[in-house]
Amino acid sequence: MKINVDGNDRRFKAVWFENNDVRLIDQRKLPEELEIINAKDSDEVAAMIRDMAIRGAPAIGIIAAYGLAMAKIKGEDMDKAVKKIGGTRPTAYDLFKAIEYMKSNNFELSAATRYSNEISGRCKKIGEYGNQLISDGSKILTHCNAGALAVVDWGTALAPMRVAHDEGKNIFVFVDETRPRLQGAKLTAWELLQEGIDHAIISDNAAGFYMKRGEIDLAIVGADRIASNGDFANKIGTYEKAVVAKTNNIPFYVAAPGSTFDFSIKTGDEIPIEERSEEEVLIINGKNLGPKGSPAKNPAFDVTPHEYVTAFITEYGIFRPEELHRMQNLIEKDLFMRSA
Amino acid sequence: MKINVDGNDRRFKAVWFENNDVRLIDQRKLPEELEIINAKDSDEVAAMIRDMAIRGAPAIGIIAAYGLAMAKIKGEDMDKAVKKIGGTRPTAYDLFKAIEYMKSNNFELSAATRYSNEISGRCKKIGEYGNQLISDGSKILTHCNAGALAVVDWGTALAPMRVAHDEGKNIFVFVDETRPRLQGAKLTAWELLQEGIDHAIISDNAAGFYMKRGEIDLAIVGADRIASNGDFANKIGTYEKAVVAKTNNIPFYVAAPGSTFDFSIKTGDEIPIEERSEEEVLIINGKNLGPKGSPAKNPAFDVTPHEYVTAFITEYGIFRPEELHRMQNLIEKDLFMRSA
Repeated sequence: MKINVDGNDRRFKAVWFENNDVRLIDQRKLPEELEIINAKDSDEVAAMIRDMAIRGAPAIGIIAAYGLAMAKIKGEDMDKAVKKIGGTRPTAYDLFKAIEYMKSNNFELSAATRYSNEISGRCKKIGEYGNQLISDGSKILTHCNAGALAVVDWGTALAPMRVAHDEGKNIFVFVDETRPRLQGAKLTAWELLQEGIDHAIISDNAAGFYMKRGEIDLAIVGADRIASNGDFANKIGTYEKAVVAKTNNIPFYVAAPGSTFDFSIKTGDEIPIEERSEEEVLIINGKNLGPKGSPAKNPAFDVTPHEYVTAFITEYGIFRPEELHRMQNLIEKDLFMRSA
Repeated sequence: MKINVDGNDRRFKAVWFENNDVRLIDQRKLPEELEIINAKDSDEVAAMIRDMAIRGAPAIGIIAAYGLAMAKIKGEDMDKAVKKIGGTRPTAYDLFKAIEYMKSNNFELSAATRYSNEISGRCKKIGEYGNQLISDGSKILTHCNAGALAVVDWGTALAPMRVAHDEGKNIFVFVDETRPRLQGAKLTAWELLQEGIDHAIISDNAAGFYMKRGEIDLAIVGADRIASNGDFANKIGTYEKAVVAKTNNIPFYVAAPGSTFDFSIKTGDEIPIEERSEEEVLIINGKNLGPKGSPAKNPAFDVTPHEYVTAFITEYGIFRPEELHRMQNLIEKDLFMRSA
């Protein structure tokens, strides 16, 4: 992805391998600081996933792949390393897909690199397919961050917007701030700013207002896990946006690479939903929002039923929920995906 | 309303008249501090409404009534005073209703006191009627603050919950934090804490999650203005909650006194929507949330079409949207409401 550092555009990945360590952009510090941090063993990789120094389903898969390759190089007990990294976050399917891939490739560093490059290349394809859905002048809603930071480059939901912008289409992005962790306001807005894509941050409450007023032409979001029938888990709030989009006849697209599709489960009811700490809701910038003594509840994801999805934008093309069996066939013939 | 001060329960109103000044709880300081401030002329009253030291449609009406009585006592130019106070916030109908009431009562202080007591008493009735909709064990969603702070006592949406709790019903309230200004997390949670009503703060994004899981039995919200056909304006995000509630067959109630009903307009399309500053979205606790350079959009209210309203809870009883003409007849026979 393009990041402007001291006035110069430079290219970065969200995570990579260097000098036997895993290196990554600390996403908790954005947009204020661009800080690169190192993870030196599988404990540190697990901590960084759990504490969300890195997040986004494809990126979690990629750091898991690099983390396991590093653990192997450094002579760690691989069963323990797999358990530690696999036990960090339950919802994103890419984590388990990446672990399977690394297992079947003997935890080689070359496999981790291939995994990262494959997923990134596939996201570029998502961008190209998704670009077909975007017109000059399109106003697009997105939720959370499904950008380059959530992959290693390109992004999923943001990839079509990048390609459309690169082709010279004028687009405008409504960025849901995405409480509680504000990945929209902090990460998506920051990515769009780096790329020079026109946008505005809105409170999550305002998306319906703009949908009802006819000011949003389409919505594109990412996914953390997609079931065989097209039900999908994504950042909390996605379900509300999808329901309100359907009410207003606004196409609602889900952009994700094959690694996010879990054909081992039939419906979204089988997707485990992570509950995170109440502090994420109650504390912003170190200060309590509410009164001391009021508790909070904090589900990190919700499941949107497939009937709210217009189509999935993938590296294989664009599929309506009822067409996902065709995509499953393509994945089964896909050497890279099959090896996971 | 009950407020615990240094370990003792004391009774407060959100706004009152004392020593020729208007006094009010500064709601911008809650829940951290209970600070009582004075407004000494109509300029200060207008500033406090505009800057949201006081908010909530009925409370805006009441401070306007007291503000105009004070202006009269202090010999202000009443045309200017009316213009200043009437020009503060465009959406809440109570503001205009209260100004009409004071005009027809020669801006007498006794009229302002009567207006305040009437509205507060009517909210108690809302509580009694609304209590009939609440069962022992009910789990209730609310959005923003439609509590005692938004009136002078009792509240609108919170009045039924207060009455149900006082009757010994066990209830649980899901409190939408209500970005951007967080009136749910800051004010509603604080009121519920004072009353000892069980609750949890959730990010606005999480309401749909709990609705879909069947964990919410009913929703009760307030209103800023209600049109003849039952379309109503309320805090931004209300529309999304109403749509998702309907999708999940969850009853969605709007609690408001007659002063919030604007029978001069046919539909919600005629309700002006206030846009507030982008800083409300971008800055929390003095710190920018997003990257410098990203703009925000900040509509303060949205309009929910009447088909999403199960019923209105009023001091005259409970009315489905198609029954509002009956309520209009009652208002026309209501001496207090007629005099406005």
